[in-house]
This record gives sequence, structure tokens and C-alpha cells, in this order.
Amino acid sequence: MTIKQLTEQIQKKKSFLCIGLDADLSKIPAHLLQFQDPLFEFNKAIIDATHDLCVSYKPNTAFYEAHGIKGWQALQKTINYLNERHPDIFTIADAKRGDIGNTSSMYAKAFFEDLNFDSVTIAPYMGKDSVEPFLAFENKHAILLALTSNDGAFDFQTKKVEEKELYKIVIETSKTWKNSERLLYVVGATKAEYFTEIRKLIPDSFLLVPGVGAQGGSLEEVCKHGMNNQVGLLINSSRGIIYASNGNDFAEKAREEALKMQQKMQSIMQNR
Amino acid sequence: MTIKQLTEQIQKKKSFLCIGLDADLSKIPAHLLQFQDPLFEFNKAIIDATHDLCVSYKPNTAFYEAHGIKGWQALQKTINYLNERHPDIFTIADAKRGDIGNTSSMYAKAFFEDLNFDSVTIAPYMGKDSVEPFLAFENKHAILLALTSNDGAFDFQTKKVEEKELYKIVIETSKTWKNSERLLYVVGATKAEYFTEIRKLIPDSFLLVPGVGAQGGSLEEVCKHGMNNQVGLLINSSRGIIYASNGNDFAEKAREEALKMQQKMQSIMQNR
Repeated sequence: MTIKQLTEQIQKKKSFLCIGLDADLSKIPAHLLQFQDPLFEFNKAIIDATHDLCVSYKPNTAFYEAHGIKGWQALQKTINYLNERHPDIFTIADAKRGDIGNTSSMYAKAFFEDLNFDSVTIAPYMGKDSVEPFLAFENKHAILLALTSNDGAFDFQTKKVEEKELYKIVIETSKTWKNSERLLYVVGATKAEYFTEIRKLIPDSFLLVPGVGAQGGSLEEVCKHGMNNQVGLLINSSRGIIYASNGNDFAEKAREEALKMQQKMQSIMQNR
Repeated sequence: MTIKQLTEQIQKKKSFLCIGLDADLSKIPAHLLQFQDPLFEFNKAIIDATHDLCVSYKPNTAFYEAHGIKGWQALQKTINYLNERHPDIFTIADAKRGDIGNTSSMYAKAFFEDLNFDSVTIAPYMGKDSVEPFLAFENKHAILLALTSNDGAFDFQTKKVEEKELYKIVIETSKTWKNSERLLYVVGATKAEYFTEIRKLIPDSFLLVPGVGAQGGSLEEVCKHGMNNQVGLLINSSRGIIYASNGNDFAEKAREEALKMQQKMQSIMQNR
């Protein structure tokens, strides 16, 4: 999927919502546990109930890996379901990968070829040759961690490197890499005050924004400082939507929460 | 497995060799492709031929994920085989994970509970709360990327943060984290001149050292600057051993290469 197609979807759906599919056996409704693949049944129900309200889904690979082969099967079935039923949805493997060149190439193969995601999140610590293999795929995207939503972000990311915070060095350096136009960036909603600075460096790039909802970030603040002319934001919500209820009505309640988000987004898009 | 047990194994085997199980369908001997699970058959043969010469095996998860469910099955069978046959071997999931707290907990569950590895490699970019969940497991270890073996290491890791290189800040900061005595560190053999500086910060910690062999690092240089009284090093070799031959004699040739490494290590240990 291209960035242009993603932008068109945002305009069409009046939404820049990404729903995080962090399916957790200890949190999904108990009645799903009788199914052969409870994680997939949960995701399928969430997708069926919300796909018209969001432009992206983001399964977090950790939640699947925690269940070994069964978990990986659930992840595979989820991405297959998305690709078959909703090819207009931008899919993100939230995997935070990155390694030396030949290894990153294998990860790229895993997520772009075997699973066929549109994008994958990448950690920048190992630098250029750990990221470029993910940028070698036409119509596929790497989403680079810049400034994350957690407290640990202040351990290294905001430390001054030669007069400039590390996350800024990461962003600036990444712009020099081959096929860098295929990069998006992770910037946490919990750090809305940083968006203005980040937009000076990457005015046109898409930002994937976790941290709205359970982690305390504000949609309005993020949009105020982070939105560009093409919207340029994917706001992720995971727990706030998918675990709105753990009863039989979980999909319905998830839709209600997603609809609230979509309506806020529509209002923000109309009032700009 | 405890660090004490690992040290005992090093003394017993006169080896601090770690063999990287980067099993790649395009590189393993063609005759293995007829098996139902070629990656596992390859790993099994390598393990059978080399287990008395090394103290650790390190499957790189990327090479398994690239084959989806089949790959994950091969990884599962490999770690099960190691745990059943060779419980004295220190196992490393080279996975370079790390995410916000609740997600890192899921990754820890994946590698320490579901797969039952002794340790997993972790990227530090997201800071304290992304690493501590991996340190909460008794007799399990996180191996933190400090200074990696690739060229991209110079993009950020050696940049000066408030007068000190980032990799040093990472090491120093990590020492303040809960259960930090369970940390090991990745330091690339291609950067042997840095070991002296690193040993000032973490004299007693184990270092996992990739980059000897195919990547050009020198065993002698690393030992000269990086060894401590307990040895304190795990020297990884992947391609140089496992792909010594791609014929019917691959396991035999892998043993020959592993034996050369073990003999060099024995000599270094005896001449200190």
C-alpha cells in the first residue's frame, strides 16, 4: 500500500485511527476460549465491528509470540483475513525489529513476504544497515522508533547528543538513508509537546502515534501540534477499544469506542 | 541457568564459544531439503557435531520467522532438543526485542516460558521499563545491545551524549535497573579497541561478542582487551562454523571449524 492510498483512505473514512490488536488470552471474553483459535476469533470480531471506522490495524507481535506456534498461527490468520477482506486497510506489524543487514533482510522477508504486512516497526539503535533492508521493498514501509510513549523514552531518546536530543539525531540521520521516503516514525502521544519540533524535521512524514487512551496521551494535543496538510498521523488505540468490554458485547462496545474516536477525528479534520 | 553454571561450563569445556544457529534454507546442504523440517534437521546435525566444543547456542529468530509457522516450529524443536539433550548449554534467543512494559512482559513470556531459552537479546532504545520485564525471571538473562558489530553502530551508539558515547550511557544506566545483575551485554568483536573502556564500566559482566569470522573481528584482540578473571566472554561464530561446507560433510566440517575455535580458546585460557 502506498502513502498516497493511505491518505485517500483517511479522507474517505474521515478517520486516521489505527486499532492495536494486542489480543491477550487473559483479557479477551471468556466465551471465546472454547474456540480452536481464540486470539483469531477475537481479532476477527473486532475487525468485523470496526473496519469502517479505522484505516489501519496494528497487531503487536509480542502478544502472539507469547503463545508460540499457536500464537503465530493466529497472527498469520489475522493478517490473511485483513488482506483478503480489507485490502484498503494499512497493516502494521508492531514488531520493533532491527539487526545487522543480513538478519534485517530475513525479518523484512518475514513481515513483508511471508506475512504480507504493509509495514513493520523498527528500532533504530543499530543504525543505517539495520534499517535499510526494510526500505528495499516497493510499497512497503518501515516505521522507525523516534520518541516512544513510555517513561523509558527519557533514558536515552531525549538525551542531548552534540547539542541535540538523540531522537532528533535519529530522525535527521534516517533521512539520509536509501529509500527513506518509505519511512514513517513512531512518536508517542504522551509527549505531545515534542510534535512541533519533530514536524520541523519531518513535515511530510506519517507519524504512528501510540499512547492515546490507556497511556494517557491527548488526541487533541497531538493533532494540534502534529497534523500536517495530509493529516500525516495514524493515532493508535489498543486497550481502550478492544477491551472496552469483556462480555458477550465486546465487539459492539469496541465499535462504540472506535466510533467515538472516529467522530472526534472527523470533527478535528473538518475544523482545521 | 545461572552465570555461575555458565562459568563452570567454560572451565570444564575449555571453551567460551557460542555457535549461532542462523539456519538459512538457501545455504544449508541441498540434501536436507527432502526432510519435513530441513532447518531443524540442519540444527540437530550441527548440535550433535559440536556440543562438546561450545558452551552456548544462539538461534537468530529472524531466520525462523522468515518461514512463518514452519520456521517457528523449527525454532521450537531446536530449543526443545537443546533443553532435553544438553541442559548444560546456555541458550540465547537472538531476537533483539524491546517494547513498552506490558509488551516486553509478553516477549519475556514468549522466550523464557513458552520457548524456555536461558536468555534473549534486547535493544535498549526504549529504556528502563522496556528492559526490566526481562530481568524479572529467576535464572534468566537479558543481553543488552551496547556496541554492535555492524557499521550502523557508528550512527548513534558512538555519538557523544553529554561528553560520553551513547553506548557507555546505555551501560551505565542499565546498571541502575532492577535485577541488573541478570544483564549481559552485546559488544561486537569488530570494535576490539572499545573493550578496555567497556571493562572499566562492567568488569564482571558477561559480554556476548558477535563479529568474529565472517564480519572480520579478531578473537585474540577481543580476549586481550575483554577477558576478565572468569573469562566473561561468549564469542559467537555463526556462518564461519555452520556453513563451513554445504555438502554431505557439513556437520563434520562445522566440527572442524568449532574445534579450531575451541583450541584457540583453550590456548588463550591457559596462557593468561
